[in-house]
Amino acid sequence: MISAMSTQDIIAAIRFDAAGLVPAIAQQHDTGEVLMVAWMNRDAVAETLASGRVCYFSRSRHALWRKGETSGQVQHLKELRIDCDGDTLLLLVDQEGVACHTGRRSCFFRAVRDGALVEIAQPLVSPETLYGEHNHG
Amino acid sequence: MISAMSTQDIIAAIRFDAAGLVPAIAQQHDTGEVLMVAWMNRDAVAETLASGRVCYFSRSRHALWRKGETSGQVQHLKELRIDCDGDTLLLLVDQEGVACHTGRRSCFFRAVRDGALVEIAQPLVSPETLYGEHNHG
Repeated sequence: MISAMSTQDIIAAIRFDAAGLVPAIAQQHDTGEVLMVAWMNRDAVAETLASGRVCYFSRSRHALWRKGETSGQVQHLKELRIDCDGDTLLLLVDQEGVACHTGRRSCFFRAVRDGALVEIAQPLVSPETLYGEHNHG
Repeated sequence: MISAMSTQDIIAAIRFDAAGLVPAIAQQHDTGEVLMVAWMNRDAVAETLASGRVCYFSRSRHALWRKGETSGQVQHLKELRIDCDGDTLLLLVDQEGVACHTGRRSCFFRAVRDGALVEIAQPLVSPETLYGEHNHG
Protein backbone atom coordinates (compact mmCIF):
# COMPACT_ATOMS: atom_id res chain seq x y z
CA MET A 1 0.00 0.00 0.00
CA ILE A 2 1.60 3.24 -1.09
CA SER A 3 0.31 6.79 -1.29
CA ALA A 4 -1.24 8.32 -4.39
CA MET A 5 1.60 10.86 -4.52
CA SER A 6 4.23 8.13 -4.57
CA THR A 7 2.32 6.30 -7.25
CA GLN A 8 2.37 9.43 -9.42
CA ASP A 9 6.15 9.73 -9.02
CA ILE A 10 6.65 6.07 -9.93
CA ILE A 11 4.39 6.26 -12.96
CA ALA A 12 6.25 9.38 -14.09
CA ALA A 13 9.43 7.27 -14.31
CA ILE A 14 7.80 4.84 -16.76
CA ARG A 15 8.01 5.48 -20.49
CA PHE A 16 4.69 4.28 -21.86
CA ASP A 17 4.53 3.74 -25.62
CA ALA A 18 2.37 5.68 -28.08
CA ALA A 19 -0.60 3.51 -27.09
CA GLY A 20 -0.03 4.29 -23.42
CA LEU A 21 1.26 0.80 -22.65
CA VAL A 22 4.39 -0.78 -21.23
CA PRO A 23 5.35 -4.47 -21.29
CA ALA A 24 5.61 -6.17 -17.91
CA ILE A 25 7.43 -9.41 -17.17
CA ALA A 26 6.05 -11.47 -14.30
CA GLN A 27 8.73 -13.48 -12.50
CA GLN A 28 8.13 -15.82 -9.58
CA HIS A 29 9.96 -13.99 -6.79
CA ASP A 30 11.60 -16.98 -5.10
CA THR A 31 12.34 -19.44 -7.91
CA GLY A 32 13.21 -16.86 -10.58
CA GLU A 33 10.94 -18.55 -13.11
CA VAL A 34 9.75 -16.18 -15.83
CA LEU A 35 5.99 -16.76 -15.89
CA MET A 36 4.53 -14.48 -18.55
CA VAL A 37 4.69 -11.12 -20.27
CA ALA A 38 1.69 -8.83 -20.59
CA TRP A 39 0.96 -5.12 -20.89
CA MET A 40 0.08 -2.39 -18.39
CA ASN A 41 -1.27 1.12 -18.78
CA ARG A 42 -1.09 3.85 -16.13
CA ASP A 43 -4.27 2.68 -14.42
CA ALA A 44 -3.02 -0.91 -14.30
CA VAL A 45 0.24 0.16 -12.67
CA ALA A 46 -1.60 2.36 -10.16
CA GLU A 47 -4.07 -0.37 -9.25
CA THR A 48 -1.31 -2.97 -8.93
CA LEU A 49 0.68 -0.74 -6.57
CA ALA A 50 -2.41 0.15 -4.55
CA SER A 51 -3.86 -3.34 -4.24
CA GLY A 52 -0.76 -5.53 -4.24
CA ARG A 53 -2.45 -7.78 -6.80
CA VAL A 54 -1.24 -7.61 -10.37
CA CYS A 55 -3.56 -5.91 -12.84
CA TYR A 56 -2.66 -5.77 -16.54
CA PHE A 57 -4.30 -4.09 -19.51
CA SER A 58 -5.83 -6.45 -22.05
CA ARG A 59 -5.09 -5.22 -25.55
CA SER A 60 -7.73 -7.54 -27.03
CA ARG A 61 -10.48 -6.48 -24.63
CA HIS A 62 -9.27 -2.89 -24.21
CA ALA A 63 -9.89 -3.11 -20.49
CA LEU A 64 -8.11 -3.63 -17.21
CA TRP A 65 -7.30 -7.30 -16.72
CA ARG A 66 -7.15 -8.26 -13.08
CA LYS A 67 -5.04 -11.39 -13.32
CA GLY A 68 -6.90 -14.29 -11.75
CA GLU A 69 -10.27 -12.53 -11.64
CA THR A 70 -11.81 -15.31 -13.72
CA SER A 71 -9.35 -18.14 -13.23
CA GLY A 72 -8.44 -17.61 -9.59
CA GLN A 73 -4.75 -17.69 -10.56
CA VAL A 74 -3.88 -14.44 -8.78
CA GLN A 75 -0.43 -12.80 -8.84
CA HIS A 76 0.57 -11.14 -5.57
CA LEU A 77 3.06 -8.34 -6.14
CA LYS A 78 6.31 -8.65 -4.20
CA GLU A 79 8.24 -5.90 -5.97
CA LEU A 80 7.95 -3.73 -9.06
CA ARG A 81 11.14 -2.87 -10.93
CA ILE A 82 11.77 -0.53 -13.86
CA ASP A 83 14.57 -0.95 -16.39
CA CYS A 84 17.28 1.56 -17.26
CA ASP A 85 15.33 3.36 -19.95
CA GLY A 86 11.97 3.01 -18.23
CA ASP A 87 10.20 1.16 -21.02
CA THR A 88 9.90 -2.30 -19.44
CA LEU A 89 8.65 -3.43 -16.04
CA LEU A 90 9.71 -6.48 -14.06
CA LEU A 91 7.13 -7.70 -11.58
CA LEU A 92 8.36 -10.02 -8.87
CA VAL A 93 5.24 -11.93 -7.92
CA ASP A 94 3.93 -14.83 -5.95
CA GLN A 95 1.84 -16.73 -8.49
CA GLU A 96 -1.13 -18.71 -7.20
CA GLY A 97 -1.48 -21.83 -9.31
CA VAL A 98 -0.52 -21.32 -12.94
CA ALA A 99 0.24 -18.22 -15.01
CA CYS A 100 -0.54 -19.55 -18.48
CA HIS A 101 -4.03 -19.81 -19.93
CA THR A 102 -3.07 -23.28 -21.20
CA GLY A 103 -2.88 -24.46 -17.61
CA ARG A 104 0.91 -24.48 -17.48
CA ARG A 105 2.88 -22.77 -14.77
CA SER A 106 4.74 -20.55 -17.27
CA CYS A 107 3.81 -19.30 -20.73
CA PHE A 108 7.37 -20.11 -21.91
CA PHE A 109 6.85 -23.85 -22.29
CA ARG A 110 8.26 -24.23 -25.81
CA ALA A 111 12.03 -24.46 -26.22
CA VAL A 112 14.45 -25.02 -29.05
CA ARG A 113 16.29 -28.23 -28.26
CA ASP A 114 18.40 -30.19 -30.75
CA GLY A 115 17.24 -27.82 -33.46
CA ALA A 116 13.52 -28.36 -32.95
CA LEU A 117 10.79 -26.62 -31.00
CA VAL A 118 9.61 -28.93 -28.20
CA GLU A 119 7.21 -28.59 -25.27
CA ILE A 120 9.09 -28.69 -21.99
CA ALA A 121 6.15 -28.42 -19.60
CA GLN A 122 2.72 -29.98 -19.38
CA PRO A 123 -0.51 -28.39 -18.13
CA LEU A 124 -1.03 -28.70 -14.39
CA VAL A 125 -4.73 -27.95 -14.72
CA SER A 126 -7.09 -27.97 -17.69
CA PRO A 127 -8.18 -24.67 -19.26
CA GLU A 128 -11.78 -25.84 -18.79
CA THR A 129 -11.20 -26.07 -15.05
CA LEU A 130 -9.62 -22.62 -15.04
CA TYR A 131 -12.17 -20.80 -17.14
CA GLY A 132 -15.26 -22.91 -17.60
CA GLU A 133 -17.25 -21.14 -20.28
CA HIS A 134 -15.42 -17.86 -19.74
CA ASN A 135 -12.58 -16.20 -21.58
CA HIS A 136 -9.14 -16.51 -20.14
CA GLY A 137 -7.71 -14.21 -17.50
CA MET B 1 24.43 -24.88 -34.43
CA ILE B 2 21.17 -25.87 -36.09
CA SER B 3 20.19 -26.33 -39.70
CA ALA B 4 18.68 -23.63 -41.87
CA MET B 5 15.52 -25.73 -42.24
CA SER B 6 15.08 -25.99 -38.47
CA THR B 7 15.63 -22.27 -38.14
CA GLN B 8 12.85 -21.61 -40.64
CA ASP B 9 10.46 -23.83 -38.68
CA ILE B 10 11.33 -22.09 -35.43
CA ILE B 11 10.95 -18.61 -36.91
CA ALA B 12 7.58 -19.66 -38.34
CA ALA B 13 6.36 -20.25 -34.78
CA ILE B 14 7.14 -16.67 -33.77
CA ARG B 15 4.52 -13.95 -34.16
CA PHE B 16 6.48 -10.86 -35.15
CA ASP B 17 4.63 -7.55 -34.81
CA ALA B 18 3.69 -5.19 -37.64
CA ALA B 19 7.25 -3.84 -37.61
CA GLY B 20 8.65 -7.36 -37.91
CA LEU B 21 9.90 -7.38 -34.32
CA VAL B 22 9.42 -9.49 -31.22
CA PRO B 23 10.51 -8.63 -27.67
CA ALA B 24 13.13 -10.91 -26.14
CA ILE B 25 13.90 -11.27 -22.44
CA ALA B 26 17.48 -12.22 -21.57
CA GLN B 27 17.71 -14.25 -18.38
CA GLN B 28 20.93 -15.55 -16.83
CA HIS B 29 20.50 -19.30 -17.23
CA ASP B 30 21.83 -20.41 -13.85
CA THR B 31 20.86 -17.65 -11.42
CA GLY B 32 17.50 -16.78 -13.02
CA GLU B 33 18.31 -13.07 -12.97
CA VAL B 34 16.39 -11.11 -15.60
CA LEU B 35 19.08 -9.08 -17.32
CA MET B 36 17.42 -7.01 -20.03
CA VAL B 37 14.70 -6.85 -22.67
CA ALA B 38 15.40 -5.96 -26.30
CA TRP B 39 13.94 -6.65 -29.73
CA MET B 40 14.70 -9.19 -32.43
CA ASN B 41 13.70 -9.44 -36.08
CA ARG B 42 13.84 -12.62 -38.18
CA ASP B 43 17.49 -12.09 -39.09
CA ALA B 44 18.44 -11.54 -35.45
CA VAL B 45 16.74 -14.79 -34.41
CA ALA B 46 18.37 -16.70 -37.26
CA GLU B 47 21.83 -15.33 -36.50
CA THR B 48 21.44 -16.01 -32.77
CA LEU B 49 20.44 -19.62 -33.41
CA ALA B 50 23.23 -20.11 -35.93
CA SER B 51 26.03 -18.47 -33.96
CA GLY B 52 25.03 -19.18 -30.36
CA ARG B 53 25.71 -15.53 -29.53
CA VAL B 54 22.73 -13.27 -28.96
CA CYS B 55 22.01 -10.76 -31.70
CA TYR B 56 19.19 -8.23 -31.31
CA PHE B 57 17.73 -5.62 -33.62
CA SER B 58 18.37 -2.04 -32.60
CA ARG B 59 15.24 0.03 -33.16
CA SER B 60 17.20 3.29 -32.84
CA ARG B 61 19.92 2.29 -35.30
CA HIS B 62 17.67 0.12 -37.51
CA ALA B 63 20.37 -2.51 -37.70
CA LEU B 64 21.35 -5.84 -36.21
CA TRP B 65 22.86 -5.36 -32.79
CA ARG B 66 25.36 -8.05 -31.89
CA LYS B 67 25.31 -7.77 -28.13
CA GLY B 68 28.81 -7.16 -26.87
CA GLU B 69 30.26 -6.26 -30.26
CA THR B 70 31.37 -2.90 -28.94
CA SER B 71 31.39 -3.48 -25.18
CA GLY B 72 32.67 -7.04 -25.08
CA GLN B 73 29.71 -8.00 -22.87
CA VAL B 74 28.63 -10.96 -24.98
CA GLN B 75 25.57 -13.12 -24.29
CA HIS B 76 26.04 -16.81 -25.04
CA LEU B 77 22.74 -18.49 -25.84
CA LYS B 78 21.88 -21.50 -23.69
CA GLU B 79 18.27 -21.92 -24.80
CA LEU B 80 15.63 -20.02 -26.73
CA ARG B 81 12.03 -20.33 -25.55
CA ILE B 82 8.79 -19.05 -27.08
CA ASP B 83 5.68 -18.18 -25.12
CA CYS B 84 2.19 -19.61 -25.58
CA ASP B 85 1.03 -17.13 -28.18
CA GLY B 86 4.42 -16.81 -29.85
CA ASP B 87 4.82 -13.08 -29.38
CA THR B 88 7.58 -13.03 -26.76
CA LEU B 89 10.92 -14.81 -26.56
CA LEU B 90 12.84 -15.87 -23.47
CA LEU B 91 16.57 -16.24 -24.00
CA LEU B 92 18.45 -18.22 -21.39
CA VAL B 93 21.96 -16.85 -21.66
CA ASP B 94 25.36 -16.82 -20.08
CA GLN B 95 26.14 -13.14 -19.76
CA GLU B 96 29.78 -12.09 -19.89
CA GLY B 97 30.26 -9.14 -17.58
CA VAL B 98 27.27 -6.82 -17.45
CA ALA B 99 24.08 -6.57 -19.52
CA CYS B 100 23.19 -2.92 -18.90
CA HIS B 101 24.77 0.00 -20.73
CA THR B 102 25.03 1.77 -17.36
CA GLY B 103 27.56 -0.86 -16.29
CA ARG B 104 25.14 -2.70 -14.04
CA ARG B 105 24.63 -6.43 -14.28
CA SER B 106 20.88 -6.07 -14.98
CA CYS B 107 18.89 -3.25 -16.56
CA PHE B 108 16.25 -3.69 -13.83
CA PHE B 109 18.14 -1.86 -11.09
CA ARG B 110 15.33 0.45 -9.96
CA ALA B 111 12.71 -0.92 -7.58
CA VAL B 112 9.73 0.42 -5.71
CA ARG B 113 10.50 0.02 -2.02
CA ASP B 114 8.60 1.72 0.79
CA GLY B 115 6.64 3.66 -1.80
CA ALA B 116 9.64 5.18 -3.56
CA LEU B 117 11.76 4.30 -6.55
CA VAL B 118 15.26 3.38 -5.38
CA GLU B 119 18.40 2.03 -7.04
CA ILE B 120 19.12 -1.49 -5.85
CA ALA B 121 22.34 -2.13 -7.79
CA GLN B 122 25.46 -0.14 -8.54
CA PRO B 123 27.57 -0.17 -11.72
CA LEU B 124 30.24 -2.86 -11.76
CA VAL B 125 32.11 -1.11 -14.54
CA SER B 126 31.92 2.44 -15.92
CA PRO B 127 30.17 3.09 -19.23
CA GLU B 128 33.36 4.82 -20.38
CA THR B 129 35.30 1.60 -19.85
CA LEU B 130 32.63 -0.34 -21.72
CA TYR B 131 32.21 1.94 -24.69
CA GLY B 132 35.00 4.47 -24.79
CA GLU B 133 33.91 7.00 -27.39
CA HIS B 134 31.46 4.57 -28.97
CA ASN B 135 27.73 4.18 -28.64
CA HIS B 136 26.43 1.47 -26.40
CA GLY B 137 25.97 -2.11 -27.46
